[in-house]
Formats: sequence, C-alpha cells, structure tokens
Amino acid sequence: MNQIELFCPATIANVSCGFDVLGLALDSVGDRMVIRKTAEKGVRITKIVGQTLPLDTHKNVAGVAALALLSKTDSAFGFEIEIYKNIKPGSGIGSSAASSAGAVFGINELLGRPFSNHDLIAFAMEGERLASGVAHADNVAPALLGGVTLVRSTAPLDVLKIHTPSELYATVIHPQIEVKTSDAREILRSAVPLKTAIQQWGNVGGLISGLYTEDYDLIGRSLEDHIVEPIRSILIPAYNAVKETSLKSGALGAGISGSGPSIFALSKGMEVAEKVGDSIKKVYDKVGIDYDVHVSKINTEGMKIL
Amino acid sequence: MNQIELFCPATIANVSCGFDVLGLALDSVGDRMVIRKTAEKGVRITKIVGQTLPLDTHKNVAGVAALALLSKTDSAFGFEIEIYKNIKPGSGIGSSAASSAGAVFGINELLGRPFSNHDLIAFAMEGERLASGVAHADNVAPALLGGVTLVRSTAPLDVLKIHTPSELYATVIHPQIEVKTSDAREILRSAVPLKTAIQQWGNVGGLISGLYTEDYDLIGRSLEDHIVEPIRSILIPAYNAVKETSLKSGALGAGISGSGPSIFALSKGMEVAEKVGDSIKKVYDKVGIDYDVHVSKINTEGMKIL
Repeated sequence: MNQIELFCPATIANVSCGFDVLGLALDSVGDRMVIRKTAEKGVRITKIVGQTLPLDTHKNVAGVAALALLSKTDSAFGFEIEIYKNIKPGSGIGSSAASSAGAVFGINELLGRPFSNHDLIAFAMEGERLASGVAHADNVAPALLGGVTLVRSTAPLDVLKIHTPSELYATVIHPQIEVKTSDAREILRSAVPLKTAIQQWGNVGGLISGLYTEDYDLIGRSLEDHIVEPIRSILIPAYNAVKETSLKSGALGAGISGSGPSIFALSKGMEVAEKVGDSIKKVYDKVGIDYDVHVSKINTEGMKIL
Repeated sequence: MNQIELFCPATIANVSCGFDVLGLALDSVGDRMVIRKTAEKGVRITKIVGQTLPLDTHKNVAGVAALALLSKTDSAFGFEIEIYKNIKPGSGIGSSAASSAGAVFGINELLGRPFSNHDLIAFAMEGERLASGVAHADNVAPALLGGVTLVRSTAPLDVLKIHTPSELYATVIHPQIEVKTSDAREILRSAVPLKTAIQQWGNVGGLISGLYTEDYDLIGRSLEDHIVEPIRSILIPAYNAVKETSLKSGALGAGISGSGPSIFALSKGMEVAEKVGDSIKKVYDKVGIDYDVHVSKINTEGMKIL
C-alpha cells in the first residue's frame, strides 16, 4: 500500500460533566485526508483544501503529529499529506484533532501498523499541543478509537473506550464565530469548590454507568456541568436558548462542545436528534450569525479508510 | 409479621476516588437488629448491646431515621428496636449507616413495603445527619441496595447500583482509634485545584467502567485519591505502610474507608484479600494500637433478613 485515503471524524470533547476526560466521535462530519509514501524521507504537507492553514510541517498539527510518530520508527521512506478540511478550525468539534489523528493513523497503516490505535493517541496529542498549548487527548482519543472515550489519566496515559448505546445521536450547532481553545482555557478558574467538584464526579459516574447500561434517562440526567459551562457559555451567543429548545424538543441533554462555540445535544434516536436540530435552527435564525447544524450517529469506529 | 431480625452490613464509603458519591457493602461485618411491632405508636430503642449509645429515640440514629419514615406513613402501630452492635462507632465503616438503614428497612418490611429500597435512602440519611451533621448517602445507599452504589446527585436524590464483579473482595483494618466524621470533614479544604478535580473524575469514570467490564486492573488503576487521602491519611497511624504492603501483597488498590480511621483494600479473589489482611496485621502488630481486620466479599444484597 503506497497511498491511503481517510475519513477523519469530528469529535465532541468534555461531553458536559467530563471536562478534559470525556469525548465522542461523530459520523457525518469530518475531514478527508490522503497520505502517500515518498522516496524522500520526512513529512510534507502538500495540499490543504477548504481552509487556510500552514503548509510548513512544523507549524501544521498533522505535520507535528506525524513527526512525533516517525521519531519512534525507522522508516525507510517519507510521507506527503493532503488535507481536505470540512471541520472549521476553532469550531469546538476537534478540527486539529481530526488532522493530528488522521496523520498518525494513516502513516501507521502505510507502515504496516507498528503501533496500536491506543499508542497513536500520544503522537496525535503533539498536534494538540501545537494547536492549543496543551497536549490534551479528549478529542484525539475518540477520533482514533471511535465511540465514547475516557482519558482516565494523562500521565501515565490511560485511555478507555466506553460502551456506546446504539441509538445515541448527536446534534451539533457551530455558530460561525471563533473561540480559541487557548482563550477558552484561560478564563477558567484554577480552583473549584469541593462541593461542585463532587457534583461533577457524581455526574461522570452517572454518565459512564448510563452508557454501559444503555439507560438513556440516566445519560440525560448526568449531562450536567457545574464547572465549565457557567463560565464558557458566556462566550456563546444564545447558548441558553439553544440548550432550552434542545431539551424541549426531546434531547437527553445539551452542553458546550469542547471549548465552544459549538453546542451539542445528545438524543435517543435520529428522529429526535433531527427535531432538536430544527428547533436549534429556529433559534439561531433570529440571532443573525451564520451557523452549521450537524446531526450524527455516534461513530463507534473512529477513523475510516475510504 | 410482627418481628423482623436483620443483618445490617458495614460499608465502605468514598472508595478512594469517589468522595461523597461511591460506597460499597460488606458481607462479613455488620450489626444485628431486631424490630418488633408494638400497640403503642412511635419508636422506642429498647436495647443496645455491644456499644454505649443513646436509647433516647431522638438522639439515636436508628430512632431518627425510623421517625423520618413514619412521618410519611399512617401506621396504626409503633415499633421497638434492639440493636446488637458489631460495627464500632467512629470506625469509618458505616456504623451509623448500618443502624439508620436497618431501622428503616425493617420497619418498611413490617409495614408491608410501602417504600422501595431507593425510597428508604432519604429516611436513613436523616440518621446520618444526626451522626455527622451532614445527611450523606454514601454509606446508607450501599447498606440498603447492596453492591457498589453511586450517589449521582443528592438534590434531587439520584442513587444508582453499579455492577459488582463477582470476585471482588475487600480487606479492612480498623485501628482502634476514633476519628469523628465531623472532624474528618472539617480538615478538608473547601476548594480544590481544577487539575486535581479532573484527575479525580477521570478515576471515577475509570472505576465505574472497570466495574461494568469486570476489568480488575482498571479498577486498581482507578483507586486513586488526590483530594482527600493526602489530608486525612495524616490522622491514621501507619497509613502509608498499610497501603504499601497491601499493594505488594497483590491488592488492586487501597484507600481510606469513609472518613477513617479504617483502611480498605480491594482484591481479586478471597485468597489475595486474605494475604493482604495478613500483611496488614504484620504492619499493625508493630504499631502497638489494637485493631480488627476483616476480609469480606462485596455484599451485593445489602440488608439481609435473618
């Protein structure tokens, strides 16, 4: 195999209660990537379509992640990467993670899989470090493993794939304003009340339990965030109205996707997820900011070879 | 039925990472309780054997919990309660919870079960309020439901029973010093670093996931507590030595039981749990404080009618 073409999924990090630990992969939104072996060693980004992003390997998240992988192998050849971006940078649905994870996944395939998908997470995190200053795993983990993932620990890295109920769907609205992950991190407080932290880990426990037992009501009750949402939601126009209409339309719960500005809702079944999407559109049509709405099954595979 | 005799299990609250939310029930340690209908209305504590505790209904946790239940019913008769204490108050393995939960469980049986075991939790919590000043559910929930329980939320009360792997055993050492729950609460900080809170909810997610998937290694890796253990362990003689020898003897993990001074370890299989117990005894024989060591399967039933 000299060339590989990939679907690199968008992802929702945090999932309300699970700040910095939970994430899930989407099915209907993602980038396309073509990676090809070259006689010349090293990594070159040869084409980026759909967004203006740096072609310089060391300034591109896919390039940096690819180099992190190659530094641990003895490859006799190099790679060139073409990226067809559908996920807008700064959208909060894992644009940098899709590119970082796609690069390491594709190169690993072309090398004959010296690494497991779990191993690849650490390399892809180097792309995240370039994008946001923090080598977080909550987007690259679901992009690589699929489904819902839990980063139990970052040092040592310990990532789990959690059971995903088959009727779980996500609705995502991306308002076309940019919130930089680094800015969204800066406004967070460095300490939290113990009482609030207890609520949060109660909800993480409830959500994980709801996923394993396919208890959709419990999943909904656990989609609470008392720590990050009150602060970050201020940056997102009509956040409360979107959340409210989602719940009224039957969503199990709703919250900020990653560091925003995208807002996600989870629903049982496609029909409800689409109804939620329609109700969100109605709210945002009045706001006067351009937006995209995506409805997607949870993607339990992660990266897909096209 | 005019009389009921019960085994009221000891419980381990917090379970390392799950401060104020997780708990589990023991099988080989617990109180015995006899409850009987009386023509005279109200609740009387007629006998307490094994410990010096108040017989005044309003000053006894079992009495207060029983009254909380009766205030929501229209019982034509009253109840007298005999308590045979094996769980020492202040031991950190749910002494007050066993009495509170036993009283409401037994009375509910004698009334023909107007309430579910889930309903009973709120009544039993009133006993905990008397004992520690806080109506916490992390001991009464496992005492009533059995197995491992998660208090997702206290307001509204939302308690879940989590799957318990069949080979999970606990070893508990109770050093014969008293740590009052109220004192152990006071020394905790009211705010925690966000970074540490993230580690904690990562571990709660990992532990719950490990319980559902019966992944004993994951259960062990998740038994970490970066918030309460560093502070409360100072109150417990030879805490680090006990934890260290438990892990060396094959325990999956170890931590403080409730607010201490008891220390628990979880193991896969009875044989390892007993080996852990022996190694802890060796450590404590040198400390020069009296102690009890218990080895117990996790009790998945909760209260047992004798």
